[in-house]
Amino acid sequence: MKSNIPVTSLQRLPIYLNYLKSIGSQEGFVSSGAIARALNMGEVLVRKDLAYTSAQGKTRVGYSLTELISALEEYLGCNDKKNAVIFGAGGLGSALLAYGGFSNYGIDIVAAFDNDPAKIGAEIAGRPVLDASHAREGVKQLDVKLAVICVPAKHAQGVAEELVACGIKKILNFAPVLLRVAQDVTVRNMDVAANLAILSSM
Amino acid sequence: MKSNIPVTSLQRLPIYLNYLKSIGSQEGFVSSGAIARALNMGEVLVRKDLAYTSAQGKTRVGYSLTELISALEEYLGCNDKKNAVIFGAGGLGSALLAYGGFSNYGIDIVAAFDNDPAKIGAEIAGRPVLDASHAREGVKQLDVKLAVICVPAKHAQGVAEELVACGIKKILNFAPVLLRVAQDVTVRNMDVAANLAILSSM
Repeated sequence: MKSNIPVTSLQRLPIYLNYLKSIGSQEGFVSSGAIARALNMGEVLVRKDLAYTSAQGKTRVGYSLTELISALEEYLGCNDKKNAVIFGAGGLGSALLAYGGFSNYGIDIVAAFDNDPAKIGAEIAGRPVLDASHAREGVKQLDVKLAVICVPAKHAQGVAEELVACGIKKILNFAPVLLRVAQDVTVRNMDVAANLAILSSM
Repeated sequence: MKSNIPVTSLQRLPIYLNYLKSIGSQEGFVSSGAIARALNMGEVLVRKDLAYTSAQGKTRVGYSLTELISALEEYLGCNDKKNAVIFGAGGLGSALLAYGGFSNYGIDIVAAFDNDPAKIGAEIAGRPVLDASHAREGVKQLDVKLAVICVPAKHAQGVAEELVACGIKKILNFAPVLLRVAQDVTVRNMDVAANLAILSSM
């Protein structure tokens, strides 16, 4: 992980970025205090988080808005183009293929993989649905570094193992199961039902 | 929040629950050490997390598997039926309507709301798509406590304000914007692109 940033800080960087992009270019400078107030956070925390990036705040005036946005984008790799694939072209996978927001982070969802003959060969939102049984060649050809698992829970572990065999070490997992992977593989879980339950328990 | 559990601990409870359900009923007892090893976590952390629930571990044997599952389910409110709605019956909203996993947590997605006349009145996965302009009455009638925002970013703040006006205080937000809400409203962000960028930066 870059410069040992804690995951909790890393998770807040896109929030700062979204906020800063939303305040418009008429503002030349923005202070950590203003960011903290707008986002209901502590100012010390904001300053600490932003210190992981290359942004340099100036006493009294704060950060140059454009520089801070650039620093966050650089940190989050928004300017490094990287290809991702989606495994499972069902409802969720199809919805994600059609979602345009990935390009803000330099991510291009280049294809989906599925094992359903009725889906293989089709296009969803301009992206091809490829045969999951040929994933290994496809992933190599497409120079893919990231994958999103959108298959049913019972298939997720098998897909994860296939992805790792394809050389993919970063997996966003929507299936409601804990994936067992080697230590050098990073999985981020996006179990929607669990998140709604967590929210309900908060 | 229940008994002041830290969000980071709360977030791990569904992971324990999924794991414990997966190991099958032939096991009578499970130790915190075995859970920790299976999930690549520290044993002290596991014990601390589980101590927020009513589960009682026994020296040497560990937790009764069925009791621990029950304690986690109780803590996460899996046995308390609660109704949720989805705002935005586009690709993502439709995919979530069709997803069966919510019932594991006692959550019933009872309807979607949309403002598209072509969608209003339709059914998706057996759930009605209702007119978003009548959300207030709908939410009251359906006794809804949770909402999922699946509308485009530019509409999300307006929808959030409408939801709060409907009395909903817990919002799962898939739109890539930070929602500004009153302090008694809890929002959990599920920005998929940001999560993929975070994963890529890890």
